[in-house]
Amino acid sequence: MQVITDTIAISSQGFTDIIDVTAKVEAAIHNSGIQSGTVTIFVSGSTAGVTTIEYEPGLLKDLPEAFEKIAPKNARYHHDATWHDGNGFSHVRAAMLGCSLTVPFKSQHLLLGTWQQIVIIDFDNRPRNREIVLQIIGA
Amino acid sequence: MQVITDTIAISSQGFTDIIDVTAKVEAAIHNSGIQSGTVTIFVSGSTAGVTTIEYEPGLLKDLPEAFEKIAPKNARYHHDATWHDGNGFSHVRAAMLGCSLTVPFKSQHLLLGTWQQIVIIDFDNRPRNREIVLQIIGA
Amino acid sequence: MQVITDTIAISSQGFTDIIDVTAKVEAAIHNSGIQSGTVTIFVSGSTAGVTTIEYEPGLLKDLPEAFEKIAPKNARYHHDATWHDGNGFSHVRAAMLGCSLTVPFKSQHLLLGTWQQIVIIDFDNRPRNREIVLQIIGA
Repeated sequence: MQVITDTIAISSQGFTDIIDVTAKVEAAIHNSGIQSGTVTIFVSGSTAGVTTIEYEPGLLKDLPEAFEKIAPKNARYHHDATWHDGNGFSHVRAAMLGCSLTVPFKSQHLLLGTWQQIVIIDFDNRPRNREIVLQIIGA
Repeated sequence: MQVITDTIAISSQGFTDIIDVTAKVEAAIHNSGIQSGTVTIFVSGSTAGVTTIEYEPGLLKDLPEAFEKIAPKNARYHHDATWHDGNGFSHVRAAMLGCSLTVPFKSQHLLLGTWQQIVIIDFDNRPRNREIVLQIIGA
Repeated sequence: MQVITDTIAISSQGFTDIIDVTAKVEAAIHNSGIQSGTVTIFVSGSTAGVTTIEYEPGLLKDLPEAFEKIAPKNARYHHDATWHDGNGFSHVRAAMLGCSLTVPFKSQHLLLGTWQQIVIIDFDNRPRNREIVLQIIGA
């Protein structure tokens, strides 16, 4: 049994930009040499989250529209009244989606469905470069 | 320390059908022989999710009604405009709930609350048979 | 590789009370002696959840307001019609947020962002004392 910590770099446009990181996570598992275990994909920050979707153009519009209903960009947030950075909606969306996803793998293959990709959703209100943490545990 | 991969089979009616898998997860931990660790319950697919609830008839209605507010079945989705499979709402709900749940166990018992069950929620728009992945890590 | 099970005690006022447990999780990792791995923060109960936020006064108001939109306190719930405990909204919010969060750590430090804290959100409709489970796995 081993623990390997790795990171992957992403660039996003913010505003609920959805980034497919599946290939980068697979590469990290390959590099780790670990055959079977779990990888925890973790966003070190409070304005982005992680989940899985079928990464296709329709859902890349549907999902931001759904988040716009839950925490509208132009509503009033107490966070913005204090900090004036205008990203209260980003914080609320990220807290609801969650910053951590644990995916099992076996024989170095992620046990995802055929039409299921791992995505980072960046809710911030500006372009961001981020380092996503991967914690790989297994044998 | 060991990693054991198992699967459990479920049959669902779709349309936010909520399936209690707690007993099957407990059985898999017993079969693994691992005393203490974590089990990651993972949905390999993009139209179902996993969480915990008190599994009682009232909440089995309340939770679907809440998801209907967040992503209504009969709203228009870009996903459906392209793919015509009519399950855009299923994808949005599943992405928001999440496909992975990690539960600790000790002495082969899940550390759940008394009125807390592990459930798969199948959001798809048709009956489905699914295999849910269990990744058990521990000693 | 080792598995260490620990608990942390919290007292909450309920009604979407948000409790910062970051320092307690860090202390548990220090006590475990494990250098690198993951900690799963798990709520053994069905009326509270766990996530991360920037723990500042504005968001401590924004997040409860967002949950009030998703599952309003004074709406009618089937759960309450049966059990008369008046916390149907608590169950729905908790199921949506999720009861489990896995956070990586390295050299005994949680790999959180600078303005990112681990929080328990207690959605119940009364003050509660809870024990939160920490499952620490690593080497």
